[in-house]
Amino acid sequence: MDGYPILDKLNGLEDLRNLSDWELERLCYEIRAFLIDHVSRTGGHLASNLGAVELTVALHRVFHSPEDSIVWDVGHQSYTHKILTGRKDRFDTLRQPGGLSGFPKPHESVHDAFVAGHASTSVSAAYGIACANRLAGNDHTAVAVVGDGAFTGGMIYEAINNAGRSNTRLVIVLNHNDMSISKNVGAFARYLSIIRAKPGYLHLKQRVETILDRIPLVGPPLEQAIRSSKSVLKYILYHNTFFEEMGLYYIGPVDGHNLKDLEHALTQAKNLDQPSVVQVETIKGKGYEFAEQNPPAYHGVSRFDICTGTFGNSPAPPAPTFSGTFGAELEKLGRADSRICAITAAMKLGTGLDGFSRSCPERFFDVGIAEEHAVTFSAGLAVKGYLPVFAVYSTFLQRSFDQVLHDAALEKTHLVLAIDRAGIVGDDGDTHQGVFDVPMLTCIPGITIFSPSGFDSLRADLNRALYQEEGVVAIRYPRGGEEAHCPLGPGEDDVWVDGDRRLTVLSYGRVAAALWQAVEKMERPPEQVYLNKIWPFSEEMLRVLSRRERVLIFEESIQSGSISEHLLTALNRLGFKGQFMMVTLPDGFIPQCSVPEALDRFGLSAGAIERRLRQEMEGLQ
Amino acid sequence: MDGYPILDKLNGLEDLRNLSDWELERLCYEIRAFLIDHVSRTGGHLASNLGAVELTVALHRVFHSPEDSIVWDVGHQSYTHKILTGRKDRFDTLRQPGGLSGFPKPHESVHDAFVAGHASTSVSAAYGIACANRLAGNDHTAVAVVGDGAFTGGMIYEAINNAGRSNTRLVIVLNHNDMSISKNVGAFARYLSIIRAKPGYLHLKQRVETILDRIPLVGPPLEQAIRSSKSVLKYILYHNTFFEEMGLYYIGPVDGHNLKDLEHALTQAKNLDQPSVVQVETIKGKGYEFAEQNPPAYHGVSRFDICTGTFGNSPAPPAPTFSGTFGAELEKLGRADSRICAITAAMKLGTGLDGFSRSCPERFFDVGIAEEHAVTFSAGLAVKGYLPVFAVYSTFLQRSFDQVLHDAALEKTHLVLAIDRAGIVGDDGDTHQGVFDVPMLTCIPGITIFSPSGFDSLRADLNRALYQEEGVVAIRYPRGGEEAHCPLGPGEDDVWVDGDRRLTVLSYGRVAAALWQAVEKMERPPEQVYLNKIWPFSEEMLRVLSRRERVLIFEESIQSGSISEHLLTALNRLGFKGQFMMVTLPDGFIPQCSVPEALDRFGLSAGAIERRLRQEMEGLQ
Repeated sequence: MDGYPILDKLNGLEDLRNLSDWELERLCYEIRAFLIDHVSRTGGHLASNLGAVELTVALHRVFHSPEDSIVWDVGHQSYTHKILTGRKDRFDTLRQPGGLSGFPKPHESVHDAFVAGHASTSVSAAYGIACANRLAGNDHTAVAVVGDGAFTGGMIYEAINNAGRSNTRLVIVLNHNDMSISKNVGAFARYLSIIRAKPGYLHLKQRVETILDRIPLVGPPLEQAIRSSKSVLKYILYHNTFFEEMGLYYIGPVDGHNLKDLEHALTQAKNLDQPSVVQVETIKGKGYEFAEQNPPAYHGVSRFDICTGTFGNSPAPPAPTFSGTFGAELEKLGRADSRICAITAAMKLGTGLDGFSRSCPERFFDVGIAEEHAVTFSAGLAVKGYLPVFAVYSTFLQRSFDQVLHDAALEKTHLVLAIDRAGIVGDDGDTHQGVFDVPMLTCIPGITIFSPSGFDSLRADLNRALYQEEGVVAIRYPRGGEEAHCPLGPGEDDVWVDGDRRLTVLSYGRVAAALWQAVEKMERPPEQVYLNKIWPFSEEMLRVLSRRERVLIFEESIQSGSISEHLLTALNRLGFKGQFMMVTLPDGFIPQCSVPEALDRFGLSAGAIERRLRQEMEGLQ
Repeated sequence: MDGYPILDKLNGLEDLRNLSDWELERLCYEIRAFLIDHVSRTGGHLASNLGAVELTVALHRVFHSPEDSIVWDVGHQSYTHKILTGRKDRFDTLRQPGGLSGFPKPHESVHDAFVAGHASTSVSAAYGIACANRLAGNDHTAVAVVGDGAFTGGMIYEAINNAGRSNTRLVIVLNHNDMSISKNVGAFARYLSIIRAKPGYLHLKQRVETILDRIPLVGPPLEQAIRSSKSVLKYILYHNTFFEEMGLYYIGPVDGHNLKDLEHALTQAKNLDQPSVVQVETIKGKGYEFAEQNPPAYHGVSRFDICTGTFGNSPAPPAPTFSGTFGAELEKLGRADSRICAITAAMKLGTGLDGFSRSCPERFFDVGIAEEHAVTFSAGLAVKGYLPVFAVYSTFLQRSFDQVLHDAALEKTHLVLAIDRAGIVGDDGDTHQGVFDVPMLTCIPGITIFSPSGFDSLRADLNRALYQEEGVVAIRYPRGGEEAHCPLGPGEDDVWVDGDRRLTVLSYGRVAAALWQAVEKMERPPEQVYLNKIWPFSEEMLRVLSRRERVLIFEESIQSGSISEHLLTALNRLGFKGQFMMVTLPDGFIPQCSVPEALDRFGLSAGAIERRLRQEMEGLQ
């Protein structure tokens, strides 16, 4: 279309509140067109944003941001919010270096009330804000907007347990679309669907009450029984949803694509001085046929053709990935060994478990967005002799630190953590970088960590982890595909490649492949060590390294607690007297940026490694 | 009493199932006497165990361990279980080095189905075991025994969401006594009390149903309305507890001190092939008057006099502690500054917040056993300008790694973590050691960490943390009291004490005080550096240290990711060419042992430090 007449003339949230019904309807249409147009060019999260257009418009008409705080859970669905709060003209920079974040960021706008990226945090944050508002004596409202997918996370329950019955102005908007990234799972999701499927269930409440009042008392024997039953029934009627039992006022379900209904419900919630929940029924992908038909495919997307809904420019099949390689190998192993179980926290597709879930459905467990539970549940399977493999993104495993340590490692329980998206992840940015798992895991006693640089190593590591190692075994691998080969053979802990021994260079994971690319261009490369098993160290490797003159390690991890630090410590213990150098990621949060750019900036690309090695070798002349 | 006639003749769980009613009643009496007698001599958890005597006897009569798995949550209440499963004769060794653990330990007995110590893990583990049993095709049951205190933790909800409606043999025994360590809090606790307080609420269900069937249809206008209402009402009647909504079969509430009722309810649950919850009403401290009157005081106890209920041998007031010092200072600050908030996860007494909770009740938040929520809730308070201080034991903060990193540090949100029980904790053993917080926190960008060695420093650090630092600030201090003074003045980052500069010795926290004790006995001590602010390092300190010949650091932390490793890394970066030595805790789990014994064993007591220093100095002659 040629421009967006209504959207373009909006100048601040006040204007939004002055639009006519017709203009509002048109505005929602324009926002959808804007979203589809822009995300088709930049990539990003589409389906969840298309589902939340009317909801976001209604929120900003009923609540007055930033005095009222709108806290988005996960943040996948915050694009319309960004468009309406002054960031429309920067939308071409979405998820680009230096551009708009795909997630709410308080440092980006005063209207982003709280940071988001990981799931299930919004009610905790909003309740903190609501308590602050109460202490400050104002009547501002804190709103948490959370999808039913994130509602499987335990933090939500902890927060509701804490907030229920408090006299705070907290509104929890439950955006119910039956989906996490894939179809939502668990008892709570089924429960929400029951509420939705039976409007009578709730609408009849009032009618039933009226009827109870009119039930005639038919003779003495029944009179007293009915009298007491009626009071019990009334109690039940007023406390018959999970939310009401937890001390929240319940409003809903509301049609999430009907602005009038939404505004009515949100206004009702706003006028309470107790916490409430507003259940809003939305359709993920609403308004874009391809996305409505297949929301998982349009959850997080790369560029696509608007007219055909097809991705990318090339009709070639997608390149093989670490996730896919892991998934295929686990499926193969799972068919052959009925002890193997696969566990995911609502990331079946992302972690490559689709095949396993079809081949071994009885041993596939999607536990919902619940990483803490996932690990302890896996440990429960393990103590009974099963071989659980929990496939999880590095950044989300941060939720399970205590469970890995306390519920698994402490009793040397044998389970495998398949850690996907380890290292730099790219345009999701700082909330999603997989750069903390090495420090987090290496301080847990008895853990074994593999970091394969290629697909063959990954396959071999998975076999070793299942059958040859004990206790907690982690295999960590990056997002995307194989960069290049390096001399590591499948199943090898490490491999040494001879070279100029005045300098010994180490690396692991995808940076090991970059190192190999770098040295292949050098006439007289240094000695190299390619690590696959990165923790614990082999004493033999340490013994040899401790006699070298200069050791240089390249590592895609935050520095504090890195393999580099542990290696320096271990060599120091052995009396190493040489020079030790480390190139790691800096100790800071790494913003959105493509993976190759980030690796290059931090000295971990093949080119950067080659430059550094040449410089070091020249220094030795 | 002279022996325990019934208890002493028991020889295995089979005998338990053959006792007469009279013998069972007597057995419970004997077990209570045994518990009071032994715990009064060894110390340990008393009140929770006294409350669970009949429940444990009933569990072992109805279920057949180890085929049926009994998973204890937290494990405070597992003593009777230990007594009945062959460990009675070792009870004098409870919580002693090499003795019985105070918590379930699979390596201690095949009847301890899963490790415990931290809260809210039992349903996850038991559901894993139940799924394993289903896969194996047997009909064994997995039982999770969990108090209502632990029910505030989100993992419980994640597990129930996952388990609900599954066809597994999972029994959740909800031991309801209204207490965590202190009075239980939150909406869910109130809800359970409503169920208990209104037996009619549940018992009337059947009666109401009968009555509904008999309601006459009084004329055409109401007929259809009542007909549909009745079906809705019936739906509500069968789905009217939180548990039923989540797909669990609900049984209860049951009198937890009536063996017959307990066995009846547990047998009913055992015969289901779907998950169930059995709500059991118990009295914490049951059978020991002092404990019934004041369960918090008898939660975890040191030795006490059985007849008077008084603790210890001396009538002296309890020695001042770090917890108490922190609490008093925060209370003082809180009275003066209405922005200061205190947050605890069900540890008001242990963390010293009792005074603050009375002085500033509107700014005191006990969020329940919910460490994840506690941090994000604190961050919510902080973004609105309040000054939240979350007081938490080091070992439980492990639950909040992701929340500290993602919800607070990422946006540099200013909040204070008051980390109690940092370092070795003693007889609680491996599940509770506070030895992982330094690695866990130092990998989080932008964090500041203080580790005061005495009370004055703690007070000054709290003031600095609130008013002079930015972002996330952690103050970590040990269990118990001040050991000795060291030359650090309040508010100093570090202090250098001159000595023989051929060796420079560093330490922090309580080990710094031990270092000072050690050097005071030496004629010619080495140069010393006492650290109070341990992270990040001051560049000035690094610059000076980098020119020293020999650096030796004593540190009460696990080594991987310790300050020692980071310091070596930083000095290496500055070209340090000297000798670097570190004495830390080993990279392993540290079993129960008194704090002084443990510190001495790992070279961190004053005596051990003195020996090491003399040895080093002699080596320099």
